[in-house]
Amino acid sequence: MVVNKIKRIGILTGGGDCPGLNPVIRAVVRTAILEYGWEVVGIRNGYKGMYNGDFIELTLDSISGILHEGGTILYSSNKDNLFDYQVEVDGKLVNKDVSDVGMENIKKMGIDVMFIVGGDGTLTSARDFARKGVKVIAIPKTIDNDLASTDTTFGFSTAVDVATEALDRLHTTASSHHRIMVLEVMGRYAGWIALHSGIAGGADVILLPEIPYDIRNVARTIEERKARGKNFSIVVVGEGAKEIGGDITVREIIKDSPDPIRLGGIGIKVATQLEKLCGNETRATILGHLQRGGSPSSSDRILSTRYGVEAVKLAASGKFGNMVTLKGDHMSYDSLENVIGRKSKLVNPNGELVEAAKSMGIGFGDE
Amino acid sequence: MVVNKIKRIGILTGGGDCPGLNPVIRAVVRTAILEYGWEVVGIRNGYKGMYNGDFIELTLDSISGILHEGGTILYSSNKDNLFDYQVEVDGKLVNKDVSDVGMENIKKMGIDVMFIVGGDGTLTSARDFARKGVKVIAIPKTIDNDLASTDTTFGFSTAVDVATEALDRLHTTASSHHRIMVLEVMGRYAGWIALHSGIAGGADVILLPEIPYDIRNVARTIEERKARGKNFSIVVVGEGAKEIGGDITVREIIKDSPDPIRLGGIGIKVATQLEKLCGNETRATILGHLQRGGSPSSSDRILSTRYGVEAVKLAASGKFGNMVTLKGDHMSYDSLENVIGRKSKLVNPNGELVEAAKSMGIGFGDE
Amino acid sequence: MVVNKIKRIGILTGGGDCPGLNPVIRAVVRTAILEYGWEVVGIRNGYKGMYNGDFIELTLDSISGILHEGGTILYSSNKDNLFDYQVEVDGKLVNKDVSDVGMENIKKMGIDVMFIVGGDGTLTSARDFARKGVKVIAIPKTIDNDLASTDTTFGFSTAVDVATEALDRLHTTASSHHRIMVLEVMGRYAGWIALHSGIAGGADVILLPEIPYDIRNVARTIEERKARGKNFSIVVVGEGAKEIGGDITVREIIKDSPDPIRLGGIGIKVATQLEKLCGNETRATILGHLQRGGSPSSSDRILSTRYGVEAVKLAASGKFGNMVTLKGDHMSYDSLENVIGRKSKLVNPNGELVEAAKSMGIGFGDE
Amino acid sequence: MVVNKIKRIGILTGGGDCPGLNPVIRAVVRTAILEYGWEVVGIRNGYKGMYNGDFIELTLDSISGILHEGGTILYSSNKDNLFDYQVEVDGKLVNKDVSDVGMENIKKMGIDVMFIVGGDGTLTSARDFARKGVKVIAIPKTIDNDLASTDTTFGFSTAVDVATEALDRLHTTASSHHRIMVLEVMGRYAGWIALHSGIAGGADVILLPEIPYDIRNVARTIEERKARGKNFSIVVVGEGAKEIGGDITVREIIKDSPDPIRLGGIGIKVATQLEKLCGNETRATILGHLQRGGSPSSSDRILSTRYGVEAVKLAASGKFGNMVTLKGDHMSYDSLENVIGRKSKLVNPNGELVEAAKSMGIGFGDE
Repeated sequence: MVVNKIKRIGILTGGGDCPGLNPVIRAVVRTAILEYGWEVVGIRNGYKGMYNGDFIELTLDSISGILHEGGTILYSSNKDNLFDYQVEVDGKLVNKDVSDVGMENIKKMGIDVMFIVGGDGTLTSARDFARKGVKVIAIPKTIDNDLASTDTTFGFSTAVDVATEALDRLHTTASSHHRIMVLEVMGRYAGWIALHSGIAGGADVILLPEIPYDIRNVARTIEERKARGKNFSIVVVGEGAKEIGGDITVREIIKDSPDPIRLGGIGIKVATQLEKLCGNETRATILGHLQRGGSPSSSDRILSTRYGVEAVKLAASGKFGNMVTLKGDHMSYDSLENVIGRKSKLVNPNGELVEAAKSMGIGFGDE
Repeated sequence: MVVNKIKRIGILTGGGDCPGLNPVIRAVVRTAILEYGWEVVGIRNGYKGMYNGDFIELTLDSISGILHEGGTILYSSNKDNLFDYQVEVDGKLVNKDVSDVGMENIKKMGIDVMFIVGGDGTLTSARDFARKGVKVIAIPKTIDNDLASTDTTFGFSTAVDVATEALDRLHTTASSHHRIMVLEVMGRYAGWIALHSGIAGGADVILLPEIPYDIRNVARTIEERKARGKNFSIVVVGEGAKEIGGDITVREIIKDSPDPIRLGGIGIKVATQLEKLCGNETRATILGHLQRGGSPSSSDRILSTRYGVEAVKLAASGKFGNMVTLKGDHMSYDSLENVIGRKSKLVNPNGELVEAAKSMGIGFGDE
Repeated sequence: MVVNKIKRIGILTGGGDCPGLNPVIRAVVRTAILEYGWEVVGIRNGYKGMYNGDFIELTLDSISGILHEGGTILYSSNKDNLFDYQVEVDGKLVNKDVSDVGMENIKKMGIDVMFIVGGDGTLTSARDFARKGVKVIAIPKTIDNDLASTDTTFGFSTAVDVATEALDRLHTTASSHHRIMVLEVMGRYAGWIALHSGIAGGADVILLPEIPYDIRNVARTIEERKARGKNFSIVVVGEGAKEIGGDITVREIIKDSPDPIRLGGIGIKVATQLEKLCGNETRATILGHLQRGGSPSSSDRILSTRYGVEAVKLAASGKFGNMVTLKGDHMSYDSLENVIGRKSKLVNPNGELVEAAKSMGIGFGDE
Repeated sequence: MVVNKIKRIGILTGGGDCPGLNPVIRAVVRTAILEYGWEVVGIRNGYKGMYNGDFIELTLDSISGILHEGGTILYSSNKDNLFDYQVEVDGKLVNKDVSDVGMENIKKMGIDVMFIVGGDGTLTSARDFARKGVKVIAIPKTIDNDLASTDTTFGFSTAVDVATEALDRLHTTASSHHRIMVLEVMGRYAGWIALHSGIAGGADVILLPEIPYDIRNVARTIEERKARGKNFSIVVVGEGAKEIGGDITVREIIKDSPDPIRLGGIGIKVATQLEKLCGNETRATILGHLQRGGSPSSSDRILSTRYGVEAVKLAASGKFGNMVTLKGDHMSYDSLENVIGRKSKLVNPNGELVEAAKSMGIGFGDE
């Protein structure tokens, strides 16, 4: 009796948008069909579709022409934890564990292995399904690039490209008008996007969650530039940037926004303060969702393709309950039990990249 | 005696950033030097530099390699009306007419003709200098494309490109997450950027200053899409969009922003309302300064080059006091006396482009 | 009895690839369905599909997400003139008129009006079908922008963007290495792409079919630049450029190429000659098919959308046998009988754009 | 007495164009001036300028605004080996060792350390100068990414981006016209650009120097696609691709080209053969110099910046005679004596990336 014989796999994508999801789906489908002769079922709208039975067959045709497309043809959803899911019982909304319904649905569909692509929340559920006996292969997804278990995540390169192009645009206005231009980019806990785009886009100051800043230090860097004849400056701010000893409170003033985290964050505060301290006209731009959507960069297409192919190979070799990772230039894997809950990979304030930036005169507001 | 013989011209750029300024400067310098053998003086920082005597010689070398660059190598400034200029007198700041100082400075530099590139404010001063006897050639500049006296202004095409690319990016997120994505673009009085980028970017709803909207109409368009199986929508909002019978008040809530017009405008309000009315997660993005900076589109490079060449030819034929215009596919000109104060060219709510958009099912919130 | 009542329309695309075809299809389908309630049938692979009965229903879903895509979802074909079509008769390949088969097929499908998108060849057949009584609405397609009957054709703007970006890339190499870089762009009869991209990309010399050149004049322009301290030059060559009194013979040497027109054309000849005459290292690049494919520019998306919407409106008002045109900023139409066989719209060697380019020092090899 | 005290450094760039050269120069200048207080001298036109004494002072102003620019502000040259340099002696051109002249010149300029950026040829001379006692820090440059001594070289990422965008464009034409589109990319000895862009651009076949191909295998891959309903295919060919047991002879037919390596290489041969074998219309595009020029990608800007900063730090710590390298995510260095002559880093035909591509059904013509 062949126990592990795979005939049919399922795949779902969960959490926020991220360039590279479609290439992952494409790589999984192509490899599963062309290399192993498996059938592939797409579960739409993340775990919600697993609960509702929103399944479609994925063929080579289904994934034709999606390599360069942003988004996910399987759709995604947030707040769809089946282990704590909002359902209506006797006319009331209550949260309950409906994971068995999801498991029953994939069983009915004849799915032998579940490929789950997502961030922290999505993969925590993936681990919980693995604990309940589902054969799971996980693929990590975050544009923030802050996963400790893997060297690079897809989506990050595209986000850095978008932010760098934005800085190129802001640069001409800053220079022509002797202005300070502030760009707020994503990165709630880790400043990778800010650091990389800041270096690539020629920022003069980069503010990161990992290096608390004093706005007076920022102003001093800008004033030193003026003393050297440069009457403009570019400041990149990661959305989670923190003042030394301080908290972000600016969000309060725009609490009516539908997206308080994304709109009117720290960038506005920093711009307001710098205008007062330095006297230059200062403008803030919040890059927001522009970082998450659109065609993946060539680098992200390759990386996500590799994640997808490796995921199928892991399954073929029976290594369930694992998440695909990149280590150096090699694909690898780690147990979901290990990776869930692991601390974020943060920018090292004394690391090589920050030191290199400082050597070139880029300020971080810490001194 | 040859009265009008030109030996030396001056050029300045005023007002906000606009892709195409450097190609204009390049075209003026090349044509002046190569075709007519004139010398060219650059006045830096707009009228402020005319007052301060901030002049540089412009040679073919000065303008080498700037065709594809955003911004202006001559810098620009706002609030620099020399006819009502803030100066310090006896330790107090007072406003006075210092236009004679500016005129004296250009006279000292031997400048025979002034080429002035700018928007409303800048060109109003240009007219006033013309009235005082300065030989002026004016070149219009506005990314909003709302000048009645000319068919198209440079900068507009680039702004539409940037907004369209943003819509492409937002589209993938909207589609993958069944969201409503709202993009606020520039256009305080005229909705050209919103209309063009909305059509190019596949928007489902376009809100313009010229067509007051009712948010319930917008919501209905979105609901009709849902009825056809499309669970997401893209809404483009020109920053000057108005509710039927209403006013924009949302700016109040972010009045601490250094740039209240640009950040947290109507886009946030629309998004907030739509989330409530339609139930979809809704996100707003304010494109802001990203529309004004960066490398000009190929179309804008050609157009601004044509404006620059024509300006020099106008001067060579002695047609001072005029602004260069584009009429159909021909360069032309009109008197500064005529063009200043002329009403903006607005989107025609019953015009061909709006009708075409409506025929394709795009909503404008008016019905 | 309502004779002209339209219930169902057909659409096909013929000829070479051109950015904007998908937006045209999308606009036709959306307007037909949403504005008029018609049904739409897609004929695949041009006239070949009309002959073979290769039809598909087009719904709103069919055209979802194609606005930003190059190519055509209906596919296209060349050499598919049904009035002179290669078929097998008694085991031999013979050419015969099979237009009746095509007409019978669309009649069987209940198609009331045929929307035909294509270039010269495709629209000549469209006219011939119109003569035989088919209700035809034609939409012109050429990236060369050389149709006399309309001001601008879609695809052209994208081709110019691609060529301009190529020039930006070649510029840095030319400048860093003191080289002459030659770029060959499309335009067999008309030099619009060369002229526009040459101006937008900062070319020093532009060679067009309309202005025969002498290579010694080209070399002199380059030498004059050297005399001014510019040791590099950029030359744009339209593929149909002609020597004064001469013919293109370079194609002979690469006659084994599968695409002799596109590969190894005039650009290589010009580069070879300039390297000898000027002594600089010289390199040629043939842009080729990169100009025809890929996502349409925002401008082309708007233009092709307008063509599509107007085509449907023409049909709705019973104006069959016409081709949609753009005149100034208005959509219009002209009889297929008039437009077929009309001479190409050529660059005017003494026109405003060429004169402007010459004023800036751009050479055309004619003096 | 402090022997190694650095006061003044020189920098030159040699060899072919490569995106990232300007960011390297910028990083060296900024770090030297801002971190160490050194002066910086630019040597123009590579070793030729070292011989001719073509020096300029580089200040912070010199390198302002060049981060996003392709090319090199210091210019470059080929065939400028001062150890075997063509000079005129008694009216005849002879080759001789003029390295002493170069050394004398940099000594006169007070240059303590030479920073030399270039490829194989340039760095071989760098080693030879090091052997003669010059304090040299070398920075590797090749878009081919085939240096064994470092993990990644700058320029490669941009080349892959350009090739991928070209594939995206060709894809729409291939698909719309049922064509085979062949793209020839750079890579004389190593197929990294072909492999990466092929995966990122969705190629169906990738031909590399490292994996000799049989055209019949290529045709079979294409026929298998047809059997699955895909009537088009995309083939990427590295310029050094080799037939099994064969040689490239196609270059012969275009030997009149000024750039025989670049124009009309293997891509045309492959296209010609595939058209015959498969019957589809087939077109070849030679990407050529478009891969070498233009604005560096964000990734290349970061990488080249890191190389530049590290080079200065190496000098500051007295580690002369070394080349900067990237190992994993850390900058490192290796002796010029070691790195010169080391075999190229080739694509592993049985490596992870090729295997992943094969798993997805991409053909390499080897089976």
